Amino acid sequence: MDWKPSPHPHLPLQRQIASWIAERVETGDWAAGTRLPAQRELAARWGVNRSTVQAALDELKADGLLEARRGSGVYVSGGAWNSLLKRAQPNWQRHIRAGVHRPNRHTIRLINDSEPDPSFIRLGTGELSPDLLPAAAIEDSLREIKIDPQEIGYSSPLGSLRLRRALCAYLAERGVQAAPDNICIVSGALQALQLIAVGLLEEGSAVFHEPATYLNSVHPFQSVGMRLFPAELGTGLEERLARIARRRQSLLYAIPALNNPTGRCWTQAERDRVYAACTKLRIPIVEDDVYRDLTFDPPPPSMKSADTSGQVLYLGSLSKTLSPGLRIGWIVAPSPVAARLADVKMQTDYGSSAFSQAIAAHWLETGLYERHLESLRGELRARADFAQEELRRLGFDELAQWTPPEGGFYIWLRFRRPIVDKPFFLRLLERRILINPGYIYDPGDLHHIRLSYAYASRAETIAGLTALREEALRAEAEAKTGAEAADD
Amino acid sequence: MDWKPSPHPHLPLQRQIASWIAERVETGDWAAGTRLPAQRELAARWGVNRSTVQAALDELKADGLLEARRGSGVYVSGGAWNSLLKRAQPNWQRHIRAGVHRPNRHTIRLINDSEPDPSFIRLGTGELSPDLLPAAAIEDSLREIKIDPQEIGYSSPLGSLRLRRALCAYLAERGVQAAPDNICIVSGALQALQLIAVGLLEEGSAVFHEPATYLNSVHPFQSVGMRLFPAELGTGLEERLARIARRRQSLLYAIPALNNPTGRCWTQAERDRVYAACTKLRIPIVEDDVYRDLTFDPPPPSMKSADTSGQVLYLGSLSKTLSPGLRIGWIVAPSPVAARLADVKMQTDYGSSAFSQAIAAHWLETGLYERHLESLRGELRARADFAQEELRRLGFDELAQWTPPEGGFYIWLRFRRPIVDKPFFLRLLERRILINPGYIYDPGDLHHIRLSYAYASRAETIAGLTALREEALRAEAEAKTGAEAADD
Repeated sequence: MDWKPSPHPHLPLQRQIASWIAERVETGDWAAGTRLPAQRELAARWGVNRSTVQAALDELKADGLLEARRGSGVYVSGGAWNSLLKRAQPNWQRHIRAGVHRPNRHTIRLINDSEPDPSFIRLGTGELSPDLLPAAAIEDSLREIKIDPQEIGYSSPLGSLRLRRALCAYLAERGVQAAPDNICIVSGALQALQLIAVGLLEEGSAVFHEPATYLNSVHPFQSVGMRLFPAELGTGLEERLARIARRRQSLLYAIPALNNPTGRCWTQAERDRVYAACTKLRIPIVEDDVYRDLTFDPPPPSMKSADTSGQVLYLGSLSKTLSPGLRIGWIVAPSPVAARLADVKMQTDYGSSAFSQAIAAHWLETGLYERHLESLRGELRARADFAQEELRRLGFDELAQWTPPEGGFYIWLRFRRPIVDKPFFLRLLERRILINPGYIYDPGDLHHIRLSYAYASRAETIAGLTALREEALRAEAEAKTGAEAADD
Repeated sequence: MDWKPSPHPHLPLQRQIASWIAERVETGDWAAGTRLPAQRELAARWGVNRSTVQAALDELKADGLLEARRGSGVYVSGGAWNSLLKRAQPNWQRHIRAGVHRPNRHTIRLINDSEPDPSFIRLGTGELSPDLLPAAAIEDSLREIKIDPQEIGYSSPLGSLRLRRALCAYLAERGVQAAPDNICIVSGALQALQLIAVGLLEEGSAVFHEPATYLNSVHPFQSVGMRLFPAELGTGLEERLARIARRRQSLLYAIPALNNPTGRCWTQAERDRVYAACTKLRIPIVEDDVYRDLTFDPPPPSMKSADTSGQVLYLGSLSKTLSPGLRIGWIVAPSPVAARLADVKMQTDYGSSAFSQAIAAHWLETGLYERHLESLRGELRARADFAQEELRRLGFDELAQWTPPEGGFYIWLRFRRPIVDKPFFLRLLERRILINPGYIYDPGDLHHIRLSYAYASRAETIAGLTALREEALRAEAEAKTGAEAADD
């Protein structure tokens, strides 16, 4: 929607708009059944009065090209379009609905679609602020990178050998012993989960996870017919897992260091309990360790570092530290498993960007990466302190509670009342403030938001938290009124 | 398998090998049930005598760590491993077999695994030779690329707006009208097929294609439960499609310009027939046009350029022209369809490499890309001429026939006898010559190979074709003997 009407001596804005829309429909770009954006939104986008948009739409409705549906907006009309064009286009809406892959949840799609718009304050995003990304240093490093013609052809299945060798050294410093053929390069940890889902599990398999989990906000397992089972980590874990694992092929997914969304690090006892239970039941563990490099104090050891039985598939990534735009992550696995996942990856996208892999290898080999981490951890700690000061200053203690973060991006803010529902999210969206509500990580949770201190500026944080507090107070008051009304 | 034993005063080679293997098993790297490479192969890899390998394996068999299975080699023993380590590791082989995604076909895996090894002559590969890739020019261009910190965060779902705008201009020059929100950036055309398969089709859908098709060599549709239906393009097409499309959601996949593997360009009549039949039956068309920029003479118009009903999903890529390592391709589609595919892509890998996208945009915007194409087409034409001269000089006219290529990489070489079977492929593999046999594109085809002139050097082409001719003569002779024996 780059197009805009422009003042023209002979073509009124209303006509320009009507022709542009008709063209969208005629070329099939706006398929039958497509819902048009709200008039208010179109008017803002095109910089015209809402009445001008209204007039153009009325004209097209009269032509039978569009139709209004009571209470739900204006749509491209199916039948009229056929009669106009004497052609049948594929019923794209039916194709879209039929797709095997689930659409992202509505809240998540709204977040994805709004995040690129700089007018939003992003209070929940899982991404570093652009000014924490070493863009200038990466730009400098591009000047030093040599492009070997062999390296920019199709990749070998496991990915660039140079990068895998650099990762062996990186992993060894973190207590994980791996050879290059234990490593499969992927385009970020989400792709790793995708490959594991389709490469190692049969349909109907069980995926265990902590109750509040990143896995609920993405669908790599659910989209191919796996079922998620929340499992508390406390005593009795083995029995809980066994009940299901007896009947289904299973896997356990966890982020033991700086869990997303809660920010927690597991205790040694928790790591031991999970490892022992899974080993006994022969359940593979996927240890997602993408936040490891971001703990403020030295991180606890990973499960993988103590894995003597090849039980753990270990995931890492540069997206949370160096640049999400690189799309570089890795899976460490027994070599036949790494080979299988690489084979699936070859069938998926023929490997990850050679240029991203070259940049990643350069940053790891030269020590640029480790130096960057040091300064990044300092910045994040300062941001975490600032966010908590502001929470206190704005009186959030009365509304919510939280544990000071040990690293990473997030404060898992728990409101004392269950006010964080979809209307709450939408009201903040309306105010151009994006939060990540707890219910996208744990469907039954209406208490939490995942508050990120890694993205918004200080001014945005203050403005965003102020609005958040207002909405929280309003929601509390409404809940009270509702409760009182129900009492009547 | 980077490791090698090395001469050591106190540690004989046999002991080094045995410990190394034991370590692979103990760490779970070689899982229970893993088949070891052949002794011959291990000996070659490690630069030791085969008897040394044999002695090490015998030692480990005696320990119960390995077991021989009659006629099929040496395996990591399951039970013994448990008793040694008092631990249970996941049954990875079972997990690998259970995976939803099919493994690549064996011939294709052998090709994928051998291609990175420079000692192979690659006579069939779908990739430009490294010396046809503008590596030095790309390296230079890296020095000019500005890294906008906003651009190296997570991508917007459709991909970089800068690249999509550059593509609008690129497409317009090729007769395709598109706005930025009609374009979804993908990591190559294979990923585009993957997204279409899971984003727009229900399980059990039908995918129509020409009998010899790239789709048989990859599994984006089959792996998610779609069925392939070969369809001849001749008269009666509509009836053939209708029979199946009546019962199943359907889609037609085609490469009308320089088909892979046959190298053919469709006639205008064929394009019209396919477009009319699909429009009538409301079957979406996937027009895979990744070879368009490589025709020796100006290419025929694409179906998309004449698509007035939004029927055609149009795929392009830079992999065949600029660099496969970029992993940059695109889908042109009606905007709701592009948005749906982008949503699935976000769930798959959170977008393509920002660095690859920046490089692609730079090459398109500056005209570097078009200039590169001109010289590339010249080089490919010279290579096509050379390959055909050699075919004639070596007497292939007596063994096979072919149509002079109109562009791209391939000669679809048809042997007069059906000799191109798996043993034929394996015999050439043994001689370290990689061919792409016709049966990976059309399971019943034992006549063709896809001969590529885009990769091998002149010397390699001569050596490769010479060996190919020898094996073809031998296979012909054997077939004759076999036939005579059968006559007895």
